[in-house]
Amino acid sequence: MGVECKKIEGGVTAPKGFMAAAAAAGIKYKNRKDMALIFSQEPCIAAGVFTSNVVKAAPVQWDQRLVEQSPFVQAVVVNSGIANAGTGKQGWEVCERTARCAGTLLDIPADAVLVASTGVIGPQVPMEPVEAGLLKLASEKADTLEAGLSAAQAIMTTDTVPKQIAVQVELGGKTVTLGGMCKGSGMIHPNMCTMLGFIATDANISKEMLQRALRADVVDSFNMISVDGDTSTNDTLLLLANGLAGNEEITKEGEDYDAFCAALRQVTVYLARMMAGDGEGATALFTCRVVGAASKEDARILARSVISSSLTKAAVFGHDSNWGRFLCALGYSGASFDPEKVDLYFQGESRRIHIYGGGAGLNYSEEEASAILAEPEVTVLADMHMGDGEATAWGCDLSYDYVKINADYRS
Amino acid sequence: MGVECKKIEGGVTAPKGFMAAAAAAGIKYKNRKDMALIFSQEPCIAAGVFTSNVVKAAPVQWDQRLVEQSPFVQAVVVNSGIANAGTGKQGWEVCERTARCAGTLLDIPADAVLVASTGVIGPQVPMEPVEAGLLKLASEKADTLEAGLSAAQAIMTTDTVPKQIAVQVELGGKTVTLGGMCKGSGMIHPNMCTMLGFIATDANISKEMLQRALRADVVDSFNMISVDGDTSTNDTLLLLANGLAGNEEITKEGEDYDAFCAALRQVTVYLARMMAGDGEGATALFTCRVVGAASKEDARILARSVISSSLTKAAVFGHDSNWGRFLCALGYSGASFDPEKVDLYFQGESRRIHIYGGGAGLNYSEEEASAILAEPEVTVLADMHMGDGEATAWGCDLSYDYVKINADYRS
Repeated sequence: MGVECKKIEGGVTAPKGFMAAAAAAGIKYKNRKDMALIFSQEPCIAAGVFTSNVVKAAPVQWDQRLVEQSPFVQAVVVNSGIANAGTGKQGWEVCERTARCAGTLLDIPADAVLVASTGVIGPQVPMEPVEAGLLKLASEKADTLEAGLSAAQAIMTTDTVPKQIAVQVELGGKTVTLGGMCKGSGMIHPNMCTMLGFIATDANISKEMLQRALRADVVDSFNMISVDGDTSTNDTLLLLANGLAGNEEITKEGEDYDAFCAALRQVTVYLARMMAGDGEGATALFTCRVVGAASKEDARILARSVISSSLTKAAVFGHDSNWGRFLCALGYSGASFDPEKVDLYFQGESRRIHIYGGGAGLNYSEEEASAILAEPEVTVLADMHMGDGEATAWGCDLSYDYVKINADYRS
Repeated sequence: MGVECKKIEGGVTAPKGFMAAAAAAGIKYKNRKDMALIFSQEPCIAAGVFTSNVVKAAPVQWDQRLVEQSPFVQAVVVNSGIANAGTGKQGWEVCERTARCAGTLLDIPADAVLVASTGVIGPQVPMEPVEAGLLKLASEKADTLEAGLSAAQAIMTTDTVPKQIAVQVELGGKTVTLGGMCKGSGMIHPNMCTMLGFIATDANISKEMLQRALRADVVDSFNMISVDGDTSTNDTLLLLANGLAGNEEITKEGEDYDAFCAALRQVTVYLARMMAGDGEGATALFTCRVVGAASKEDARILARSVISSSLTKAAVFGHDSNWGRFLCALGYSGASFDPEKVDLYFQGESRRIHIYGGGAGLNYSEEEASAILAEPEVTVLADMHMGDGEATAWGCDLSYDYVKINADYRS
């Protein structure tokens, strides 16, 4: 669309009026940041998308209610020690008490406080450390880049790196900023949205258009990644807008809306790719690009199937150009196509080789294929020659460390 | 139904008139049996179910045609070196030539020879070793139990044990025998039928009823197992009946048909469980039993979801009673239920503990739970309290060895 989005330094504190903080509250682990706060100096409208899992963590239910019913929100409180899922009535009370305590400390209504949790499913969240943590978060919140990074670190669980980005775009002569952070490393599978993600923006936009933009976006960003096929109980993606950029309010589709969506897409795809590449135990970002599918939806289904397969993932880990597995995963995806027409390529940073075409394997160099599969970013390109549907999905390889991390996650 | 089925010694050669043989043809590996023959002294009717993968191996296409169109079949030739999938026109010619050569040697029409392949996808099957192998198979075929076991060994790939069973049932005063064998260890996922399986019987039954019995059976046997979620290009289950038991021909539903189905179910569930328990790298058979689901189909969906999850599988491998993962996998299965109503149990050979109920975790002994998860057969029992739908699914744990085997399967 020719919209110019500029990546800038920082994360959730990059947009005007947003502050953040982190605290080591000792909710489950000692000596590790495990609570984060995002706070807007002005009331925000909020949009959200949440897990499709029937078993929804208490904070997911809390946030769904707030996003639908609250006139405005102003803070997000995150804990990364305990998921607060499978916790019954007591789990809901933890959300209520957290929001009430944060509201008092921040001088905003409890119904303006979103909460999010990640970590082990089952145990109850102890309120004492949470309340002590909130005190620290409220008093130390700041609008600096450091505070944003610190919050991005505090929401990590098995993540190995913090994940944040900020982007600027011009809307009617005004500079609008979006800043996001996310966590997610295991229990990651595309079905909205298998992670915690928080995006702040100073854009002036109506609640309806904000929710529409987010819903449309995730279909080709967060819903196109997978680490292990498990859709979590806690997946939450929140988008908060406080309007401080001063642009004319976006209330309908048009140029400004498109520009906002383009900037949002840059934020979400960046975060989604980071999550996939930092999947538990991952040694590589494993991308599948499908072109020429019968439809856009077919392309999504095909691309996701390839990056979700344990066998393709193990092949990438082993740098083994066993293309039959990639073809096989296309075949059981549910999308229909003619195997005789498909072309398969392995693509590295600066080279691409043709692996399969005309219904059979081609005469390629195993050595070169293996070298491509050893790169930190591996792309399998599939041209289905059925139509003009295109999509990209992101995953990671399957390593010994994935098993190790998950065979005893709780210890 | 009160039908008495008696397990007896042996496999595919147990029913009257069936012979088998194995050969080390050197198709891919040296010094390993890699070809098997099943031969019936009398013409058989055949039923078959095949992979739902869009990418179907040449032998799958060959067999589908024969099962539909051939008036009778009399032999099955299997190679376990190369899958003959993704091999285009040349792959089809390999099937034709194999059937023609076997037909000549066995003095039966080429259209009476079913073929099946398993192994690596992509390479072409070399005809010379196949033809030499066929010569050996044809001359050495025998109706002994040893010959049956030898064939069961020859179809193994990454399997660690041969898988066979034989069962007898009385039909109208006549003893009918069913004998089966299968292989399957990776690329195993319920969607018909992710493996090679061959069942021979001397029952006298019409082609229509034979196919109906097989189709009805797999829904609760082979389609209820998963090793890694990958539905292969080669899945084939064949059921051959030569009528030599002399029972009155089964041509409609009724007592005899029910008894035959019960015996078939004993064979298929035994083989399916063996396959799941011998999944690549598996250290345990991991069963999920769902009761009280809203419908039978919901029960199947829920049970399969639990045994297909990488995270539940890793938890079983680590003997980690992280019940949140089991609840989570029920939640994203696609079946609807009320998480507050669910009861979850871990069940070992001689004990059962209640883990989750009333919407929250229960106060159980972690030590005992971990001890149950360390048993060679681990069952998770989920009572959904929604209706009377019941189903069982079988899988295995996810180990380092799964990754190791699949990171470099081809070497």
